[in-house]
Amino acid sequence: MTVSKSITVLRTVQQVRQWRLQCILNRESVGLVPTMGALHAGHCSLVNESLQENDRTVVSIFVNPSQFAPHEDLDAYPRTVERDLELLERAFNQKSVDAVFIPKISEMYPSGITLDVNQQRGAFVTVHGCSEQLEGVTRPQFFRGVATVVTKLLNIVTPTRAYFGQKDAQQCVVIKNLVKDLIMDTEIRVLPTLRESNGLAMSSRNEYLSQEMKDRSSIIFKALSTGQAYYTQRGTKVAAKDIINLVKPIITSDPEFELEYLAISHPETLDDLEYVEPGVGAIISTAVKVPRESGDGKARLIDNVILN
Amino acid sequence: MTVSKSITVLRTVQQVRQWRLQCILNRESVGLVPTMGALHAGHCSLVNESLQENDRTVVSIFVNPSQFAPHEDLDAYPRTVERDLELLERAFNQKSVDAVFIPKISEMYPSGITLDVNQQRGAFVTVHGCSEQLEGVTRPQFFRGVATVVTKLLNIVTPTRAYFGQKDAQQCVVIKNLVKDLIMDTEIRVLPTLRESNGLAMSSRNEYLSQEMKDRSSIIFKALSTGQAYYTQRGTKVAAKDIINLVKPIITSDPEFELEYLAISHPETLDDLEYVEPGVGAIISTAVKVPRESGDGKARLIDNVILN
Repeated sequence: MTVSKSITVLRTVQQVRQWRLQCILNRESVGLVPTMGALHAGHCSLVNESLQENDRTVVSIFVNPSQFAPHEDLDAYPRTVERDLELLERAFNQKSVDAVFIPKISEMYPSGITLDVNQQRGAFVTVHGCSEQLEGVTRPQFFRGVATVVTKLLNIVTPTRAYFGQKDAQQCVVIKNLVKDLIMDTEIRVLPTLRESNGLAMSSRNEYLSQEMKDRSSIIFKALSTGQAYYTQRGTKVAAKDIINLVKPIITSDPEFELEYLAISHPETLDDLEYVEPGVGAIISTAVKVPRESGDGKARLIDNVILN
Repeated sequence: MTVSKSITVLRTVQQVRQWRLQCILNRESVGLVPTMGALHAGHCSLVNESLQENDRTVVSIFVNPSQFAPHEDLDAYPRTVERDLELLERAFNQKSVDAVFIPKISEMYPSGITLDVNQQRGAFVTVHGCSEQLEGVTRPQFFRGVATVVTKLLNIVTPTRAYFGQKDAQQCVVIKNLVKDLIMDTEIRVLPTLRESNGLAMSSRNEYLSQEMKDRSSIIFKALSTGQAYYTQRGTKVAAKDIINLVKPIITSDPEFELEYLAISHPETLDDLEYVEPGVGAIISTAVKVPRESGDGKARLIDNVILN
């Protein structure tokens, strides 16, 4: 790890636009890695890919209030900006991040923002058809918040490419549709989920877990992988319920785990599938609530694997 | 009137982006005049202002399906592209329009579009707080359609400035909030309503009216002006209902006119006002249905005046 020169921190839309205009005039491509901070190796793999693919890379750090419901963990969400900046100041394979955008809430929500959806005023973006199922069932406004903040970030930065992790599979589908439908001039790049050595998908919310709970939570990926292996070995059309029947008992074998959903969905529309078949493929995705280290309620973990 | 060289017609997003990139590299400012075609002198005044204020001007012509309800006049809406292009080929005060963007529906709605809101899939933009009242009462999805198509157009063209007419007062408020909240890098310019010599606000929907009905419809503006004159002469805080009581009987004096609403609203929030006072001001706005020349139903005319 090499500590490079202190990183350029952009705090206002105006500063980003000035920085961006210079890139356009130099005909430099720009990669954006949007994050909510609490950076881990998963984010670093996105940054690394952006550095490989673009002349310039900007990372945004913004904990977006509009994607949290009033009862969710907005206040508790880990905020580690100093550590995040140190991480980003490293050189990644001889290259380093050009700028970090860390806006205030008022910069991103000039009309203000309240978590109570019925009280919200101003412009919001909704992607109908892929926001309502899976995560959307228990978090009905979540993807409206995600789509809205991503629209804002893409409008501010106008990146050539923007980078997201496959771990948030539904988010990736929502954002791809958003960019296509609102005709934004950005390529959406989705990179594979990074995992701990035990298989647990990397997530900022893993910070809520004890080491013991992280180990126990690794059965989520083991369960999904079992389903994936079953489908791959069959090499033919398989009933979704056969995969579910294999995966579900593994996750629910831990009596403290609460399975919120386990679904087999079309990879592009996210419609529920009755059968999985080669050529179409599917996503097996799940949300599981596991005990927090603090003893204060549960952390909600999500993960998914792709069937081709 | 001078007929200039044949105008550049851009039909795809890709063509607009190539054209726009050249402007950026030349550091030229770009004005966009979004229209649904059926151009009249009101549009020309927007074009003229854009030509004065920008190095380049592009006019878009697109009848946006998502702002029409299934029972509204999408199919009947006047489409006069040949005439529109002839009009735009004129030189305006020695300058002329640089390009016209005439996209197909599939170019603007890559996921397709149906008029039945419950069947619509894909990304839509809603501006909460200023879309529900006035026009929004009888046209509940109208401003969602407007906000969505304007977002697309601004994303495609990324103009320095975009031009709208004060005649569509609520639309102007919605779009100003849209651009502010979604942090788009475009200045929204609102220009005064152009009127026929009898005072009738210019509108593409006036084509539905006979000359006699146009003359009768001029009482709409006369009524609004009476309210405006009353407030101006008082020069002090005035009860909104006193203005309404003056304006309403003038509009309803024509037995064939159907008054849909007559409202006195805050100029920025569009909230209903009980009193109008200098320093805050107001908009008096109305929608009136008047008989079509075809005898087939009514045309819906809107107009407004500003109180300072």
